[in-house]
Amino acid sequence: MNRQITLAARPVGYPKESDFNLVEVPIPTPQDGEVLVKTIYLSVDPYMRGRINAAKSYAANVEIDEVMVGSVIAEVIETKHPGFAVGDIVNAGIGWQEYGVVGGNGLRKIDPTIAPISANGGILGMPGLTAYFGLLKVGKLQDGETVFVSGAAGAVGSVVGQIAKIKGCRVVGSAGSDEKVSYIVDELGFDAAFNYKKVDDYYAELEKHFPDGIDVYFDNVGGRITDAVFPNLRVKGRVAICGQISQYNLEQPEVGPRFLWFMITKQARIEGFLVSEFSDQHTEALVEMAGWLRAGKLKYRETIEEGGIEKAPAAFISMLKGGNIGKQLVKIADIN
Amino acid sequence: MNRQITLAARPVGYPKESDFNLVEVPIPTPQDGEVLVKTIYLSVDPYMRGRINAAKSYAANVEIDEVMVGSVIAEVIETKHPGFAVGDIVNAGIGWQEYGVVGGNGLRKIDPTIAPISANGGILGMPGLTAYFGLLKVGKLQDGETVFVSGAAGAVGSVVGQIAKIKGCRVVGSAGSDEKVSYIVDELGFDAAFNYKKVDDYYAELEKHFPDGIDVYFDNVGGRITDAVFPNLRVKGRVAICGQISQYNLEQPEVGPRFLWFMITKQARIEGFLVSEFSDQHTEALVEMAGWLRAGKLKYRETIEEGGIEKAPAAFISMLKGGNIGKQLVKIADIN
Repeated sequence: MNRQITLAARPVGYPKESDFNLVEVPIPTPQDGEVLVKTIYLSVDPYMRGRINAAKSYAANVEIDEVMVGSVIAEVIETKHPGFAVGDIVNAGIGWQEYGVVGGNGLRKIDPTIAPISANGGILGMPGLTAYFGLLKVGKLQDGETVFVSGAAGAVGSVVGQIAKIKGCRVVGSAGSDEKVSYIVDELGFDAAFNYKKVDDYYAELEKHFPDGIDVYFDNVGGRITDAVFPNLRVKGRVAICGQISQYNLEQPEVGPRFLWFMITKQARIEGFLVSEFSDQHTEALVEMAGWLRAGKLKYRETIEEGGIEKAPAAFISMLKGGNIGKQLVKIADIN
Repeated sequence: MNRQITLAARPVGYPKESDFNLVEVPIPTPQDGEVLVKTIYLSVDPYMRGRINAAKSYAANVEIDEVMVGSVIAEVIETKHPGFAVGDIVNAGIGWQEYGVVGGNGLRKIDPTIAPISANGGILGMPGLTAYFGLLKVGKLQDGETVFVSGAAGAVGSVVGQIAKIKGCRVVGSAGSDEKVSYIVDELGFDAAFNYKKVDDYYAELEKHFPDGIDVYFDNVGGRITDAVFPNLRVKGRVAICGQISQYNLEQPEVGPRFLWFMITKQARIEGFLVSEFSDQHTEALVEMAGWLRAGKLKYRETIEEGGIEKAPAAFISMLKGGNIGKQLVKIADIN
């Protein structure tokens, strides 16, 4: 049988495990041009929170009793597609389930010789690409600039800071625990970081780290930390809006200080983006990222929940609350 | 004697006439390379409000007892500069005073044959250039898109909407009186407009005018109208932040709903700008604007206070409260 996680109820505030159901259905059969894959790692990501709201986001929402949306690292176990062989490792958007049938267009082959295959859910996958394009194409980072990244110990933020260091920039990050702060400074080489739970005046904290201002802010978090960035931007500063995780689980929307006046005085730019906008350049970017990884210029950690598909909701909720360092994955099965 | 308006006190909330002094000083004498000019029209503009705060804006603030900052349309009455003759009409940044001495670099000659010279304080001056570059270069308007402009009956907004019409766009504006609304629709050719003082639900109002969303928002105003734009943006929408006049005279800063999540779902861009960023392109832009003006494609109104320099504070305060249609000027003297 194929076990799946479906949406039981639209969460109010933080999702609860009871907002999800574990159901069993027969393993599907591939038709011509399709393959059957078995999930090895399931990815849980912040964007999924937006997909289970009632309000439409940038993509279709998950309906009640539908399988949770998401992407997995999987093994081809039966093939009716000439481009894929049994044993191939692929990235597939089949959602939170143990098995899925996919056409060739829905699959991206993974080279398991570059890094452990789990890396394709993180630094060599969507989060790594998000960091790359958000910083370099949206933020238009120039060598030697100053960079601030919120959510800096997460799957995206940890890569943002390392790419900025590769580009010779000064990088400061914020994260939600002392352990995360030491990780990004001591292991990843950020110039500085702070634990936002221990700082009250974010404006003063940023002013201390950036006495001459911030050139590029990569925002994963939103809320009060982001508020404090605008007055600290340099003239012609850029703000790449990747995520707003501090806002996703609020029962009532927040208000905050108005900051658009700073956009004029700083002649600054804010731009929101999706990694999918850059899909025609993903392949070249992954080649460059893999090169940096091999050269030891990029490091990564993963937080892997080992308990199988039934643990996906708990891992998702933990990630939303900041329980992860680096990419949060759920191990579903071993490779055959 | 030369009469000047100086800053008497930093305003709290809306400026009061008592925040300004009228002083008399001797008329200055030009040295080699300089000219003496006599002010014909004085321009009062929203940006001046930011310059009389204690907090530094994008440019130096006016100090107490200093002459108010600003630009005038003036006549050369004495010259020690070979490039300027007595009788030349010029734009000069001498501030709020009847006479001033300026070097050649601080002067821009005005061609009085294109339009009445007062137009060089508005549609053929800084406000017109602000509209032009904000809409076309910052907003990157494309033919046939949808445009919303706040402060649409002002010196900048009224030009924004007309340029958008020249570009074949659908344009809606907001303004603060029924008279302004009829002016921009009936005289300037906006597709629609609304009196923001008579509308409560700006979100619904914008949704009604833009059922498929807003491509470009040109913001002169900020606050609640601007809040309502973000959920109504189209994917890849652009927001050009020119002014935030609703916020300049608040005694306490406002808070508002957080909207950065919409930047992601719309993959949208917000950009603040100053017209001075485009100074290398001002001349070509003015040629194009003058062509449109001659062809009857651009129209303008002015609100001219006739009472001389002593009326400049009152005209400034009235403009901040929306008392003007089109460009607010103060007539200081007749041409010799």
